[in-house]
Amino acid sequence: MASKGLVGWQDVDLSPEGQAEAVACGKLLKEKGFAKFDVVFTSLLGRSVKSAWMALMELENFAMPVINSWRLNERHFGDLQGKEGVSAPTTAPTALSMTDSRHPANDTHYRNVHKSSLPGSESLANVVERMTPFWSDNIAPCVMSGKTVLVSGHASLRALVKLLEAILA
Amino acid sequence: MASKGLVGWQDVDLSPEGQAEAVACGKLLKEKGFAKFDVVFTSLLGRSVKSAWMALMELENFAMPVINSWRLNERHFGDLQGKEGVSAPTTAPTALSMTDSRHPANDTHYRNVHKSSLPGSESLANVVERMTPFWSDNIAPCVMSGKTVLVSGHASLRALVKLLEAILA
Amino acid sequence: MASKGLVGWQDVDLSPEGQAEAVACGKLLKEKGFAKFDVVFTSLLGRSVKSAWMALMELENFAMPVINSWRLNERHFGDLQGKEGVSAPTTAPTALSMTDSRHPANDTHYRNVHKSSLPGSESLANVVERMTPFWSDNIAPCVMSGKTVLVSGHASLRALVKLLEAILA
Amino acid sequence: MASKGLVGWQDVDLSPEGQAEAVACGKLLKEKGFAKFDVVFTSLLGRSVKSAWMALMELENFAMPVINSWRLNERHFGDLQGKEGVSAPTTAPTALSMTDSRHPANDTHYRNVHKSSLPGSESLANVVERMTPFWSDNIAPCVMSGKTVLVSGHASLRALVKLLEAILA
Repeated sequence: MASKGLVGWQDVDLSPEGQAEAVACGKLLKEKGFAKFDVVFTSLLGRSVKSAWMALMELENFAMPVINSWRLNERHFGDLQGKEGVSAPTTAPTALSMTDSRHPANDTHYRNVHKSSLPGSESLANVVERMTPFWSDNIAPCVMSGKTVLVSGHASLRALVKLLEAILA
Repeated sequence: MASKGLVGWQDVDLSPEGQAEAVACGKLLKEKGFAKFDVVFTSLLGRSVKSAWMALMELENFAMPVINSWRLNERHFGDLQGKEGVSAPTTAPTALSMTDSRHPANDTHYRNVHKSSLPGSESLANVVERMTPFWSDNIAPCVMSGKTVLVSGHASLRALVKLLEAILA
Repeated sequence: MASKGLVGWQDVDLSPEGQAEAVACGKLLKEKGFAKFDVVFTSLLGRSVKSAWMALMELENFAMPVINSWRLNERHFGDLQGKEGVSAPTTAPTALSMTDSRHPANDTHYRNVHKSSLPGSESLANVVERMTPFWSDNIAPCVMSGKTVLVSGHASLRALVKLLEAILA
Repeated sequence: MASKGLVGWQDVDLSPEGQAEAVACGKLLKEKGFAKFDVVFTSLLGRSVKSAWMALMELENFAMPVINSWRLNERHFGDLQGKEGVSAPTTAPTALSMTDSRHPANDTHYRNVHKSSLPGSESLANVVERMTPFWSDNIAPCVMSGKTVLVSGHASLRALVKLLEAILA
């Protein structure tokens, strides 16, 4: 739902297009009969939370838990992050070192995660790998107990879809 | 932050004035240096959650828990609820019976609360009484452990202020 | 499950008789077919937690949440607490002042509760009053969603039974 | 803390030797000055929870959260599980198929985990891998915020030690 360039874990604001998409998403979910979500999951990036809130306002869904996790974050693009005019490589770009101020280990948003798990760069396979425990221990139990779940994420949700396809195959 | 008439526990949408107030509140908090809230509390009423989200978007605060509780709801105005042209009485209005479809015991929003605690009408003293356990067991521990806390509520927050004044006196 | 004298909120060890009762309680629950508890509630007093653990060991129930709350504590007997040879008065005894080192506000076990809610003395009616929010917001939702619940408390559980009888009447 | 044979995820009772070790562990922690644990983590296996409870009784530590997770379970020994007279192989033994009644996917203890994450067999490296997210997202944040933490596990805690050594290296 974000913009040009490899934004990755940069916490940029939701673009006007992204805002319009979030509202349209809310309208579409309403049309399709999703009257009430029981629990909502988002990444730790502001644009993911804001997208969820904007869709939920459209749906008039207010009183349910909204749970944020770094494990739903966009793919980390290493030292390509913030670069414009480059496209996402298939492998993990050169990793930021942990002493680099741009590394998530130095970002207070991630102070509740041990730095040994925070990536300095990721391939799509790495995204699947770090998203899987959150799916298994947090999202899936809600789905399995019959709850209606909304997940707001990034292009990285392709990793979740990939994971689900593998499970259902 | 809502409108004319005794709205109480009716889950009406946030008025345009209420939306403007929420945005202005976010701007003011930013100006005053409240850069980051660690935890946010709201009532279970949509207009309270929406006010919080709108203020938080203005503050660019996205990744913190937002906790909803009926104990922060507006005062329940019993059978006066929804009436226009009446002002809030000092005592509890005639209570809705538990078999009345308008009683919170028959509203799925409150299915996680035992109906014996849900009011069919309230005086301001009743509001203080049902808000106090939530203050003591949930909000106060956050404040006491040094967290910066945002509470989004209703005219009923006067009950919280009253409670705090009594504590500090 | 404790001893002679008005023990109240004093955190005394579970007596040998209390331990035998906890084990017997576990055996009885097993005989009666309570194979698995989904969630367990105890007071904050050690003898209540220990009773629960001993009964659960007998039942071979290990992997469920055990939730502790001061709201399930024994009745607070004010300045009669610790006295032997006295029996529980019907009204609240003389209250401990908040500056008294024996007042719960000065006990680190209760640091997560705002001191304005912590009692310096209680009547049985006061116990019902402070237990009710915990019943409504925490225990009842588990029961209502079909979970099998174990509550380990004190003579004060009479307050819970009283509350339930009033609800069911 | 358990017995002969490759017990793994079999939920066998704590042996008398294991019970004596748990009590001795509590005594030792007391001697060394660990007066109060703020939070306790155990596996989902009964012998790990029971060990924690027995040590905590010795320490007179009762009112703190005790959190159970399958991610702290013993290594899963696949089809070698329950075999006596065999020693733990360095690689993962032949995996139980998901249709095997002994596979954790068919055990109600694990109904809150998506079956795609539950192992049918593990190498020590697999144990490190599934333990790591729990360390990063649950245990480490407690340690980093200054809490005193007790972890009760299995030979598999060697995986945690290994992980910590790699982090500190």
